[in-house]
Amino acid sequence: MSVLFERVSIVGLGLIGSSLARAMKRHGLAGHIAGHARTAATRETAMALGFLDSVHETPAQAAAGADLVVLCVPVGAYAGVGRAMAPALAAGAIVTDVGSVKQAVIRDLGPILPAGVHFVPGHPVAGTEHSGPEAGFAELFQGRWTILTPPPGTDERAVLRVSQLWRACGSDVEIMDAGHHDVVLAITSHLPHLIAYTIVATATDLEEATQREVVKFSAGGFRDFTRIAASDPIMWRDVFLNNREAVLEVLGRFSEDLTALQRAIRWGEGDKLEEIFTRTRAIRRGILDAKQA
Amino acid sequence: MSVLFERVSIVGLGLIGSSLARAMKRHGLAGHIAGHARTAATRETAMALGFLDSVHETPAQAAAGADLVVLCVPVGAYAGVGRAMAPALAAGAIVTDVGSVKQAVIRDLGPILPAGVHFVPGHPVAGTEHSGPEAGFAELFQGRWTILTPPPGTDERAVLRVSQLWRACGSDVEIMDAGHHDVVLAITSHLPHLIAYTIVATATDLEEATQREVVKFSAGGFRDFTRIAASDPIMWRDVFLNNREAVLEVLGRFSEDLTALQRAIRWGEGDKLEEIFTRTRAIRRGILDAKQA
Repeated sequence: MSVLFERVSIVGLGLIGSSLARAMKRHGLAGHIAGHARTAATRETAMALGFLDSVHETPAQAAAGADLVVLCVPVGAYAGVGRAMAPALAAGAIVTDVGSVKQAVIRDLGPILPAGVHFVPGHPVAGTEHSGPEAGFAELFQGRWTILTPPPGTDERAVLRVSQLWRACGSDVEIMDAGHHDVVLAITSHLPHLIAYTIVATATDLEEATQREVVKFSAGGFRDFTRIAASDPIMWRDVFLNNREAVLEVLGRFSEDLTALQRAIRWGEGDKLEEIFTRTRAIRRGILDAKQA
Repeated sequence: MSVLFERVSIVGLGLIGSSLARAMKRHGLAGHIAGHARTAATRETAMALGFLDSVHETPAQAAAGADLVVLCVPVGAYAGVGRAMAPALAAGAIVTDVGSVKQAVIRDLGPILPAGVHFVPGHPVAGTEHSGPEAGFAELFQGRWTILTPPPGTDERAVLRVSQLWRACGSDVEIMDAGHHDVVLAITSHLPHLIAYTIVATATDLEEATQREVVKFSAGGFRDFTRIAASDPIMWRDVFLNNREAVLEVLGRFSEDLTALQRAIRWGEGDKLEEIFTRTRAIRRGILDAKQA
């Protein structure tokens, strides 16, 4: 693969940032990969892991001279990081990100970036429950989708170049309106995480003896929720705070459906339960057919 | 391994029944394994798969002369199957089961069984989202827990022999009160399934274009729920109808916790979200330590 960017700056070296750096390194997509993390410990770990060419104490130092900057920090940190690095951004540079919400990101970051810098908001729909630079791996994006949500008027060549980057990392690319992205992801990702966090929290409030049994007999279904509920707390706090309206909307629908099921159980309506449990199998088949399982 | 039972009858040849037959065959635990399934198609498939020594059209035919009968049908079918096979049961025979609820099973089946037949209710906490005789495999119970809930006065030797069977299949065994079992499983298994069915059902009510996107971008968390929500509809209908009180109780707690999180999102209470999301990680570590992940 040929070099797509001369100097890439990755701001935030957790699961996604470090996976992207590894994938770019493996496929030779960048002339130089500069990284930034907030803590010295993370910076040292990242350098030791060998997926960066240089590491920097501030976002501005990492971003200086880069033709591509990728924000891989929790979305609540975008405004601060954006203000810190804005003066260092070269004209013509592309800024993209990997955040799980897109309207808030465009609102927060767009106005901060200098004229002549192209902002291409992005979201690779991939991840694991693990966090930090050690958790990343180059194959994370393979066979997954990356959604780009460029606002109207975004430079088309910049969008194309960011698409090329993700495709070179093994991802499929979809262009979408930011508002639509936030609704779709509210149901496919944000609500599932909220539910998983809730059910695991409900279990932690049980008396201690029962809690030990919950761990012991978790193979009955519960353990799948604990995996999701082990995801990064700061990242997810910021997702819910920044996609509030879409999350509350799908949560409302979910609560209505749950109440209807609760009523069917209370009144012993077996036919209703069976009908719903049968309908849900079709969605699973769709996911298997789409090779997203 | 030596033969534990001369003639075992497995009534119901789905995921669990066929896995148990396979495990008993592999470890040489039974002199003869007789099977019964309701439909001719399942009986033929099961025989062709080679994990049975004989197959029978009625529960009574399968149970005749058996020293162990294992019920592996949905719990709603127990009373009918029990009545059908009761006259064929030999004195001293042991009847056990694999149902996910235990109080209702003791209530429904206990009075039907003839005097001199030992009833040892059981529940292997293991499974997959697949159903039918083809879905089973001999290793399903390895490293998992099987819970036995013998009512007071149950023959101790019968309990011991059923324990030996599960241990020989690679499972650990725990003896528990039936009522306590139903509460613990309501949180570790029944509530997670109910939630998963609900969220997938919520998604199926979206307009068709959005539904296609839900499938496409399911890697964000949703696909884990669809796996659980692909589980056998009849089995799960019967679980909810037969563990109503415990399920409604934990569902009430879950709904309160979800409402509290919803409120925290609406009012932008980041600290509260972060605190909950951090607490849930500890449960995951417990499950990893207990090797149930």
